[in-house]
Amino acid sequence: MTTHSRTVFFISDGTGITAETFGNAVLAQFEMKPRHVRLPFTDTVDKAHQAVRQINHTAELEGVRPIVFTTLANMDVLEVIETGCKGMLLDMFGTFVRPLEIELAVKSNHRIGRFSDVSKSKEYNDRIAAIDFSLQHDDGQSNRDLEGADVILVGVSRSGKTPTSLYLAMQHGLKAANYPLIPEDFDRRQLPPALIPHRKKIFGLTIQPERLSEIRNERRPNSRYASLENCRHEVSEAEAMMRRAGIRWLSTTTKSIEEIATTILQELRPERLVY
Amino acid sequence: MTTHSRTVFFISDGTGITAETFGNAVLAQFEMKPRHVRLPFTDTVDKAHQAVRQINHTAELEGVRPIVFTTLANMDVLEVIETGCKGMLLDMFGTFVRPLEIELAVKSNHRIGRFSDVSKSKEYNDRIAAIDFSLQHDDGQSNRDLEGADVILVGVSRSGKTPTSLYLAMQHGLKAANYPLIPEDFDRRQLPPALIPHRKKIFGLTIQPERLSEIRNERRPNSRYASLENCRHEVSEAEAMMRRAGIRWLSTTTKSIEEIATTILQELRPERLVY
Repeated sequence: MTTHSRTVFFISDGTGITAETFGNAVLAQFEMKPRHVRLPFTDTVDKAHQAVRQINHTAELEGVRPIVFTTLANMDVLEVIETGCKGMLLDMFGTFVRPLEIELAVKSNHRIGRFSDVSKSKEYNDRIAAIDFSLQHDDGQSNRDLEGADVILVGVSRSGKTPTSLYLAMQHGLKAANYPLIPEDFDRRQLPPALIPHRKKIFGLTIQPERLSEIRNERRPNSRYASLENCRHEVSEAEAMMRRAGIRWLSTTTKSIEEIATTILQELRPERLVY
Repeated sequence: MTTHSRTVFFISDGTGITAETFGNAVLAQFEMKPRHVRLPFTDTVDKAHQAVRQINHTAELEGVRPIVFTTLANMDVLEVIETGCKGMLLDMFGTFVRPLEIELAVKSNHRIGRFSDVSKSKEYNDRIAAIDFSLQHDDGQSNRDLEGADVILVGVSRSGKTPTSLYLAMQHGLKAANYPLIPEDFDRRQLPPALIPHRKKIFGLTIQPERLSEIRNERRPNSRYASLENCRHEVSEAEAMMRRAGIRWLSTTTKSIEEIATTILQELRPERLVY
């Protein structure tokens, strides 16, 4: 058996994002690179039979049984797959929903997916408004309505402000503005004036000069902007400024957007999200 | 027992995003609005003891045991929580990792989180490059390097192009451009000329005129732009144009960004992602 020839199926009656997020986290515990097959919107018995045929065909071709992660709220669909599929079934809902029914002393509602009609959801509309806000306040483009921001990220160019702001807006519905720290600020030895009234909401991103120079060189090879000397200077000025202003900050050098965002949320503890 | 007084904990030695995504999907099967408490980066025995104290304190206050979702790769941390915690423990890794160890005939590596040092990861750098690309190609801002796009979304203003493009970039690393369809295009009865060579990568978003008018009225109340009459006209022209050009499209009226993105991925089946 070679672990490379394994196929992993993710079957859901919704988008399958939960199945895949969770399945990937479980599979990350093993040294293998399986082939991924996604079967979202498997919400009818017909589609369930189709999925079973595809899984069993793969099992025959590969000579090992595929791994099948399911998040199915529709019991008819689940039954077809449980009965017919020759894969190793990891039924994520069944495993946890049944014990919870007992604990909570209520029946589950078998609702499909996390999203019902989003046009009627205030939470969803707030999320879209947050994305709009973050785009309009990207890279210091606008000082308007900074009072409305949940968080304002600052840092030198290419320290990770833009992707982090968009992630905070998209995944957590936070209005995240971001502001570059530039040589004029360093000369003045002060935060950009528009930010001073909002100091409590500011969070700084910094980065190792070597890594910053690498990233900037991809954009503008051999420029002064990307030179290690200039990166060292900017980072040291930015860190000194944040220290003087009493701003919390973290280094993004080895961190993913998700890790940066989680750390910021823990530090800022916005009222809307309980920590 | 009132279901409102339940608290749900999400404990992880990484960001906790997997624990929360999965826990929320499971909890969506029940009619309850529990309080959420996130405990990310619980990666030492000390922090585990702190978590146990917090959970047990909550159990006492509320008089029911909290629900505790864990994604812990660190066995020492897990053991502290298993031993001391008075909550209902739903150990997501243990439940599925052990059967997989048997199936795959290999031991799991107990790796913490999905992200190692991202500065060394090509996949991660590609994702950041995709976000940059999508921002630069938002709302038809640039025709440069459209050959490099994985997908080009088209549709009338406020049909959902921008958040969907950013989502495809952020979550799937796809270079997603987007282009508005505007009155000039309708008069010419043709797609924007820059797009014509890239027809295969184009995907259309449409929306019910009533919903579109609602969304536009939030931005520019009582404008001609937001009027139902104008929205009806633009949507009907845009749909006619997409039909003539043979472009695939979907209606975003009741769909979340996640549902729109999943549908687009299924239709376009970009080579990088197996479907």
